Amino acid sequence: MKKPFWKREKNGSVTSPRGFVAGGIHAGIKKKKKKYDMSLIFSKIPCVAAGTFTTNRAKAWPVLYSMKVINNARHHAILGTSGNANCLNGAIGKKAVDEITWETAKALEVLPNEVLIAQTGIIGVPFPVTRVKRAIPKLVAKLSDTGGHGAAKGILTTDLSNKEIALSIELGGKKVTIAACAKGAGMVHPNMATMLCFITTDCAITKPMLRRAVRHAADDTFNSMAIDNDMSTNDMVLCLANGLAGNPAIAKVDRDYWMFREALEEVMRYIAYEMVKDGEGVTHVCKLRLSGAKTPTDAERAARQIANSMLFKTMLAGSNPNWGRIAAAVGASGVDFNPNHLSISFGDAEVVHLGKLRVLNIPKARRILQKKEYTIDVKIGKGRGRAEFITSDLTTKYVLINAAYS
Amino acid sequence: MKKPFWKREKNGSVTSPRGFVAGGIHAGIKKKKKKYDMSLIFSKIPCVAAGTFTTNRAKAWPVLYSMKVINNARHHAILGTSGNANCLNGAIGKKAVDEITWETAKALEVLPNEVLIAQTGIIGVPFPVTRVKRAIPKLVAKLSDTGGHGAAKGILTTDLSNKEIALSIELGGKKVTIAACAKGAGMVHPNMATMLCFITTDCAITKPMLRRAVRHAADDTFNSMAIDNDMSTNDMVLCLANGLAGNPAIAKVDRDYWMFREALEEVMRYIAYEMVKDGEGVTHVCKLRLSGAKTPTDAERAARQIANSMLFKTMLAGSNPNWGRIAAAVGASGVDFNPNHLSISFGDAEVVHLGKLRVLNIPKARRILQKKEYTIDVKIGKGRGRAEFITSDLTTKYVLINAAYS
Repeated sequence: MKKPFWKREKNGSVTSPRGFVAGGIHAGIKKKKKKYDMSLIFSKIPCVAAGTFTTNRAKAWPVLYSMKVINNARHHAILGTSGNANCLNGAIGKKAVDEITWETAKALEVLPNEVLIAQTGIIGVPFPVTRVKRAIPKLVAKLSDTGGHGAAKGILTTDLSNKEIALSIELGGKKVTIAACAKGAGMVHPNMATMLCFITTDCAITKPMLRRAVRHAADDTFNSMAIDNDMSTNDMVLCLANGLAGNPAIAKVDRDYWMFREALEEVMRYIAYEMVKDGEGVTHVCKLRLSGAKTPTDAERAARQIANSMLFKTMLAGSNPNWGRIAAAVGASGVDFNPNHLSISFGDAEVVHLGKLRVLNIPKARRILQKKEYTIDVKIGKGRGRAEFITSDLTTKYVLINAAYS
Repeated sequence: MKKPFWKREKNGSVTSPRGFVAGGIHAGIKKKKKKYDMSLIFSKIPCVAAGTFTTNRAKAWPVLYSMKVINNARHHAILGTSGNANCLNGAIGKKAVDEITWETAKALEVLPNEVLIAQTGIIGVPFPVTRVKRAIPKLVAKLSDTGGHGAAKGILTTDLSNKEIALSIELGGKKVTIAACAKGAGMVHPNMATMLCFITTDCAITKPMLRRAVRHAADDTFNSMAIDNDMSTNDMVLCLANGLAGNPAIAKVDRDYWMFREALEEVMRYIAYEMVKDGEGVTHVCKLRLSGAKTPTDAERAARQIANSMLFKTMLAGSNPNWGRIAAAVGASGVDFNPNHLSISFGDAEVVHLGKLRVLNIPKARRILQKKEYTIDVKIGKGRGRAEFITSDLTTKYVLINAAYS
């Protein structure tokens, strides 16, 4: 394997790139005292912004708002709240978004449509707008260039740990940093279900190129993971780029673009993996590699069907190499596949080779499935279509968490 | 409600219709001694047959076999085995099907292609063909006109109870009986995932009309239920009609056809409901009624998305009227829907009315969700598209059963 061209920053956070300050506070949306429920990321220098949003038809108010304002030329800040999704709670929810982005903009001395907003939490409950508005000055006062970790905390819900990373690359002799913080856990699924990810970078890049890079990188990472089969009303990936690295601005698909795009994808891949690992009740993380499909679309369909199959996911929980469930899921996906070309490996234990069972490898496969993290390779034919998914097991703990959550 | 025109038979089984004998035995496919694992249903008088089969691309050998021979004009028997799905186990599996149907036909003194076969159990394991062949004379000796319950037992896997019913109707002054036995539990899902259902009737009906009735009735029942999101390799509904009731043969879509079709659908609906109720780890059964969609297809899509949502199903496990998860699932289905027209009732407790929350009804909704069986009504707009699904909760027990099964 060749050495990566990017460098991981120690103790990285969204304030690692130049020019960003951030912070998090407890505003009182969550009942538990001192649990952070508000985050703010701010760049004094105006940024270009890009984002991807949930495809759920029932979009939360912050999604509708950010989808609208993201098309403007410049942005300064991302506001995040957790504990209440501000979704399906009537026109009051819309008003809440307008008011808190307005208050935030006022405190930051920028325009309201230069503030992006993302929210997460329970659906269908009135948003405590007065409490949140009152907390905004406190939040703005908390902004600092070491506040990235606090901001990362303010968007968590059932997550067990912060999800943060910062990488740096060199473009035109300048150090360019890309950083992210995220909220995942539970309900994580293709099409970006219930996850928030805020990305900051000091890269100089045009808005169209940033938009392109974010969209493509998200497709290959966030849209290829599966914890459960739901798509959230609130999902969002937002990215701010302020250009302070001083690199020659990326304005077309050139070598610099590809280096930036690769590093961005690496940031997202890390975050996606951490999300699946920290999914509700998850005890095993599986990288599923599907190959041999006729087309990439077929490969994706088959991989998605396996990755979301409840029988497959409970099998992972039981560390049980019941490969028949994988074959059944491929069959259920409807893609062309010939059972005589099927090969399945758990780690490096090949249990099915061209449709034939290798019984002697089953004990080894079982041992591999007992590990916390592993790869499963599924080859379904002779085609060149490939796809990769990150998925997890379905445990009794997942059920307990989600039966109780309210 | 008007009185049904059909009568439920006491202690009904597949031997309730005239001319059918049946039986079940332990042949040794299942390890546990005395656990039935083979069933046979037989009519001396030749029957017309109809069936529906799994759409999974990885079809088990018995599915491939029965799909082929069902197009013949006459049939005499249905052979069922449980414990081994005889699927994805190489060419030996095909030979096993050929041999055991041939042996059965020989013992019954009929032609091999007059015997239909269905199998269920674990996938990808060699089928114990010698043991099963040796047991066939014993199985045939067991045939009797009270053997329906035994036959019902021989196809069960993780089911907790027999699933059987017999109804009678009057056609042209003659009593016509329709009966069924089935195997469900786990993996039950739209498109008939892992379920077997054998239907017998003494109705006189032509093959095309029987085929039509079975297909339509299955669409409205078996294909509208959801325990988990997998589609099995072995699913099958088979129906034999021997004409011994002596009614004027049904040969076109007339009043008699509709009465027969209605009664057949009632039989299937009963079996489908019992299957969901007996699903792995199921503690709550929910009839989900979706209305107000633009088209019936939209309604079905939205209902299916809700019925299969893991968040919805865990919510049922926790008796938690977290209606936001229903709205999010409708949104995720991609059908046109206006949150301001959304109404959701748990039993008769309306929690959302035209997009507005009725907080006072929540305690009542919670009490209703604590019952074993209830209805949830979801209205998503002003359209006339409606759909109905039977679904269940997702419990820790489901996970435990499926993590261990192998």
